Amino acid sequence: MKISKPTLLIDEQKCKANIERMLQKVESNGLKFRPHFKTHQSKLIGEWFKERGVEAITVSSLGMAKYFEEAGWSEITVAFPLNVLQFDEINELAAKVKLNLLVDNIEAINALEKQLAHHVFVYIEIDTGAGRTGVRFDDTDVVKEIAKAINKSGKLSLKGVYSHAGHSYNAQSKEDIHTIFSLTKKRIIEVKERINDLSPDLEICIGDTPTCSVGEDFTGINAISPGNFVFYDLMQVFIGSCVSSDIAVAMVCPVVSKNVHTSEVCIYGGAVHFSKDSENWEGKDIFGMVVRQERSGWGIPDNGAYVKSLSQEHGIVKLEKEEFDAVDIGDVLTVLPIHSCLTAEAMGYYMTPGGDFVDHYAQKNRDLPG
Amino acid sequence: MKISKPTLLIDEQKCKANIERMLQKVESNGLKFRPHFKTHQSKLIGEWFKERGVEAITVSSLGMAKYFEEAGWSEITVAFPLNVLQFDEINELAAKVKLNLLVDNIEAINALEKQLAHHVFVYIEIDTGAGRTGVRFDDTDVVKEIAKAINKSGKLSLKGVYSHAGHSYNAQSKEDIHTIFSLTKKRIIEVKERINDLSPDLEICIGDTPTCSVGEDFTGINAISPGNFVFYDLMQVFIGSCVSSDIAVAMVCPVVSKNVHTSEVCIYGGAVHFSKDSENWEGKDIFGMVVRQERSGWGIPDNGAYVKSLSQEHGIVKLEKEEFDAVDIGDVLTVLPIHSCLTAEAMGYYMTPGGDFVDHYAQKNRDLPG
Repeated sequence: MKISKPTLLIDEQKCKANIERMLQKVESNGLKFRPHFKTHQSKLIGEWFKERGVEAITVSSLGMAKYFEEAGWSEITVAFPLNVLQFDEINELAAKVKLNLLVDNIEAINALEKQLAHHVFVYIEIDTGAGRTGVRFDDTDVVKEIAKAINKSGKLSLKGVYSHAGHSYNAQSKEDIHTIFSLTKKRIIEVKERINDLSPDLEICIGDTPTCSVGEDFTGINAISPGNFVFYDLMQVFIGSCVSSDIAVAMVCPVVSKNVHTSEVCIYGGAVHFSKDSENWEGKDIFGMVVRQERSGWGIPDNGAYVKSLSQEHGIVKLEKEEFDAVDIGDVLTVLPIHSCLTAEAMGYYMTPGGDFVDHYAQKNRDLPG
Repeated sequence: MKISKPTLLIDEQKCKANIERMLQKVESNGLKFRPHFKTHQSKLIGEWFKERGVEAITVSSLGMAKYFEEAGWSEITVAFPLNVLQFDEINELAAKVKLNLLVDNIEAINALEKQLAHHVFVYIEIDTGAGRTGVRFDDTDVVKEIAKAINKSGKLSLKGVYSHAGHSYNAQSKEDIHTIFSLTKKRIIEVKERINDLSPDLEICIGDTPTCSVGEDFTGINAISPGNFVFYDLMQVFIGSCVSSDIAVAMVCPVVSKNVHTSEVCIYGGAVHFSKDSENWEGKDIFGMVVRQERSGWGIPDNGAYVKSLSQEHGIVKLEKEEFDAVDIGDVLTVLPIHSCLTAEAMGYYMTPGGDFVDHYAQKNRDLPG
C-alpha cells in the first residue's frame, strides 16, 4: 500500500491476540464478557469479537449504540450516565435491543419513569475511588433510594452495579494496579451486599483495561467491560497493562522537513490525527514513539525516537543523530500512539497493511484513503 | 434550538467583529490579507471573508485547499512543508487555482521540478525562532540554494519568504508578544535582504494570531496570514491576544451527573468533542471555562467554574458550592474552549444559536444535529 498522508494502520493479528488473551481470562474466571467498543468503534473489529462468541457489548454514547445495533448487536450497555435530554435516541434503541443503562442519580430514574416507551435494564453506577461519576461506594442511602425506585417501576429492571476504576490510569506499575483492583472489588462487592435484601442476584460489572489486564482473581465479580485492551497503546505500556509488542495500531506519517540544528524531523501528522494526549517518559512529555516498520509488521521502540510535540497538522520527532541522518524527506515514520482510543477517533478509519479499509463510527467526510 | 448533546455554537456577530478588527489592521498597514482557514475550515465562514473583499486564503493541508477551491477560492497558500508524496493532489490543485506552496529544503524543489504538471508559486519557509519548520533565519547558504533552484525552474516562481512565529503561543503577556514580533520582523526582513540580488520584490508573509493581534507596526512586512483570531479562545486570552468577550465559539454540554462530595458535575462533552489541549490557570491545568448563557449570547467567565478534566466522552466541571446547588441534571452548561481550532476539528460542524448548521471540512458521518 502506498501511504501519502497520515494513516492509522491496524495489525489484525495483534488485535485478535489481545482479544484472545482477555477471553481466556474471562473464561477461566467464569465471567460474562461485555467488551467496551468505544476504543475501536468499528463494525468489522466487532465481528472479530462475535466470531469468538461474544454477545453483549458496551459503548459510551447512544449514537455509538445505534451504530452497533445496525451491525446486529442485540445487547448493548451504554456506560455513560443517563443523559435525560436524549429520550428520542433511548426509546429508538430500547425498541430494538436489550438496552442496559447506567444511572447514578434519582433524577435520571424519574426521567426514565416519565419518558421511557420500552423496558430497559439499569445498572447503578458506583464510584469506587475514581471520583468521576457514580454514587460513591459509601453513600448507601442513595444507592438504596435508587434501587427502590427502580424496583417500583414497571419499565425498569435493576441489573446490577457497575464501576469503572478509571484511577487505574494513574498507575505506574503492576503493583499500583493490583492495589486499585483489590479495593475496587472490595468496595463494589460491599455495595452489592448492602442492597442484597432489595434485589438479590445483582450483577457486578467492572471495566477498565489496567485492572482487567493485570488482575487475576475475579472472585465476586460477574462481568467485565474493558475496552482499550483491544489495541493497547503507550499509556498502557507505561501503566504496566501490556508490553509494547501488544500495541495493535500505529500511525504512519510522511517526513516533510528536517532540522539539522536539532536532529528533529517534522512529520505530516498532528493533533488532528493523533489527538493530544501525552505521557511522561524519561522526564519529558511525549506524544508517541517511533518504531521500525518491517515487512511483517512494526517492531518495538528501540532507538528512543519520540514525538516531541504536536501542533494542528505538524508533529516534531526527536531522533538520535545517526537515525536523523538516515531519514529522508518523503520517507514515512511509524509511530505508536499514546492513547489509541483518541487517535482512532481523530482518524475516523483504519487501514490494514494490505490496503483494506476498516470502518470507524467517527468516519469523516474527508481525508479518506485513495 | 433544543440542545441534547455536545454542540459547538458559533456567535456570528463576534466572529465578524474579529474579522473586521483584523481587516482594519490589514488596511491601515497596507498589508495583503491571506487569512488562515485552518481554524474555522468552513465554506460559510469563508464567505464572511469574501464579502469583505478577501481574495487569497491560507490552509494547512491539500485536502483543505481542495475544499475551499470547490467553494470558489482562486488563490490558496498551503502553509505546510511540501509533502513530496502528494503530487496527485498538488497537480490537481495547481491546474485549478493560483497555488502557493511552502518549501524549506532542496529535496522538495527537486521533487517539484520532476513531478509538477502546472506552474506554482513558492514561499521559502523561514524559522525565525519557533524551531518547528523552515530554514533557520541564519542559514543563508540554504536559503540562497533554494532560491537559485527555484529561479532556474520553468515551473516555479519564487513568491517570497514566509514565517510562522509559533513560539508566540508561549507568550504570557502583550510584552512577550511584542518582543517576539520585533525579532520575527527583524530576522525575516534580513533574510529577504540577503537574497534581494537573486530575487527582488519578494513578499514577506507572517502569520500567527498573537503577533498579528497585538502588533502595530508592520513596516517591512507585506502580508499576514493569522487564523485563530476568527474565533479566538481561552489560550489566546491567557497569551494576551484578546479578551474573553471576543471568543466566538462555545461548547454547550448537558449535565449528566452531580458529585455532592466535590461540588463537581459531569457533562456530556469529553476529549472527542473538545480535543485535549489544556492551559495553566491559577496553578491548575484546565480544559475550558463555564460562562453564563443569555438570550443574546454567552457572557464571560465570572464565577471561576472550569473544566477540570476530560476523558473520552466525560467532562468534569468544578463549581463553587452555590453554583453547584443551582445546577440540575438535564441542564446544559456553556463552555469556552481552550483551543478553538482543535475543538472545531473534533466537532466537525457548528450550530448558530438560531439552529442553523454551519459546515466544517472535518464533518463526520455521525453525531450530526437532529
